[in-house]
Amino acid sequence: MPDAPHLYRHRVRFRECDKMGVVYHVHYLDWFEVARTEALRDLGLPYKQIEESGYILPVTDLAAKFHQPARYDDEIIVETRVSISKSAVRITCEYVIRREADELKLVTGHVTLCFFDPERSRPVAAPDEFLRILRGDR
Amino acid sequence: MPDAPHLYRHRVRFRECDKMGVVYHVHYLDWFEVARTEALRDLGLPYKQIEESGYILPVTDLAAKFHQPARYDDEIIVETRVSISKSAVRITCEYVIRREADELKLVTGHVTLCFFDPERSRPVAAPDEFLRILRGDR
Amino acid sequence: MPDAPHLYRHRVRFRECDKMGVVYHVHYLDWFEVARTEALRDLGLPYKQIEESGYILPVTDLAAKFHQPARYDDEIIVETRVSISKSAVRITCEYVIRREADELKLVTGHVTLCFFDPERSRPVAAPDEFLRILRGDR
Amino acid sequence: MPDAPHLYRHRVRFRECDKMGVVYHVHYLDWFEVARTEALRDLGLPYKQIEESGYILPVTDLAAKFHQPARYDDEIIVETRVSISKSAVRITCEYVIRREADELKLVTGHVTLCFFDPERSRPVAAPDEFLRILRGDR
Repeated sequence: MPDAPHLYRHRVRFRECDKMGVVYHVHYLDWFEVARTEALRDLGLPYKQIEESGYILPVTDLAAKFHQPARYDDEIIVETRVSISKSAVRITCEYVIRREADELKLVTGHVTLCFFDPERSRPVAAPDEFLRILRGDR
Repeated sequence: MPDAPHLYRHRVRFRECDKMGVVYHVHYLDWFEVARTEALRDLGLPYKQIEESGYILPVTDLAAKFHQPARYDDEIIVETRVSISKSAVRITCEYVIRREADELKLVTGHVTLCFFDPERSRPVAAPDEFLRILRGDR
Repeated sequence: MPDAPHLYRHRVRFRECDKMGVVYHVHYLDWFEVARTEALRDLGLPYKQIEESGYILPVTDLAAKFHQPARYDDEIIVETRVSISKSAVRITCEYVIRREADELKLVTGHVTLCFFDPERSRPVAAPDEFLRILRGDR
Repeated sequence: MPDAPHLYRHRVRFRECDKMGVVYHVHYLDWFEVARTEALRDLGLPYKQIEESGYILPVTDLAAKFHQPARYDDEIIVETRVSISKSAVRITCEYVIRREADELKLVTGHVTLCFFDPERSRPVAAPDEFLRILRGDR
């Protein structure tokens, strides 16, 4: 697994801001998803390939702390660190969202997903080919 | 088809308001969908039953005019009038959204959907049992 | 504070379901917000009144666990328990979301908000009139 | 005004797809907004500058036709053509959304906005400095 986090850039949209002129808190979780999708693509494991191999990746838990608000038209960066559990069943993404201009930390959090076999309707270990990628054994 | 429109009540949520303190325009289209779902359920044709009969109902076109804005915590009413085309392929929903307190007209518009057979991947006429319901021949 | 949780009913909408036919996880957090708004209104402290008294209530942290998925057209119930911190600065809402039909537990979580004075740009204690309501000393 | 449309690229996200595996129709209107924001920025008139000059730009009407669906992970392009009315009060954005791979036309539509003075609470003509930019008299 790479030591440096994956970086995803986003500019805050009008529709993401609330009456206070700041980002409505739930949208940060939408950015977590996009950042995670791009982080997996960059590792060489696009989500579409996971799906086509017969797995899905439901979210099992998440948490977030909101330190400072992002504002309309701010450019922000989502740092994503992906790790896989020893059991090979769970992927955890650790996130830090910063304002690009001054690197101010806005939001921190994590999302955990599990490899799930929809046929058998239960969590399963990731196959070896995915593990090699997720563990950086390339 | 009933002459009176179906009425759907909604209270404007915090997350639906933008920096101006008014509803972000795209959310009115979300309310169109909920109102249409409930209008069909009331007619006796829940969308789930349409799906289970092997049809889907993609939206083919829509339009909306925004006359006055709704504000946070306003109670609004979506009036929906459902009609089916002569060919039995298209459903059109005509909408008026009003503020409940004074009946002020906020938004008008329509959404057209078509009966679609995903197996044959093309638009089809609605089956007779649906037509009887949609045309009010009960 | 009442011992029984506030109950908010919702029927899962088409737009809330993802490609798997289950609710996309972020929407549960939208329901948390609506449920909290209605819980505060029921206690006698509508969010609009909080705003009009010169306070805002930003979310400072949240967490959620996803046990079982909700599906299209399911009727679900959000149970909300509201509590106020000893310092009177923070409100915590504890949530359980259940499928109404069989009371199956789908999601659990919490959201913490703080009383915030936008003029002075810092967290503050809730005023006594709010505390009496939030602590149930009526 | 430039003859070539502004081009905005987007990759379809998981949360934008519905149970049919295609983009839920309302999200195309979200993309209209982002494309319009970037088109105005490219012309040299960022929305933030419009706001800071004391105007807002509410949407007055919109329409869309859905020709073919976009699917998960598709790369799509939103073409935007911006024009200003003779009266200088209304901006219209004409849109074509295509799948990048084969240029298949997915969605067409338009959104009309008006220059609005929130102080006087009524539509107004755009100031000359904005008109020069919007009419391409540079």
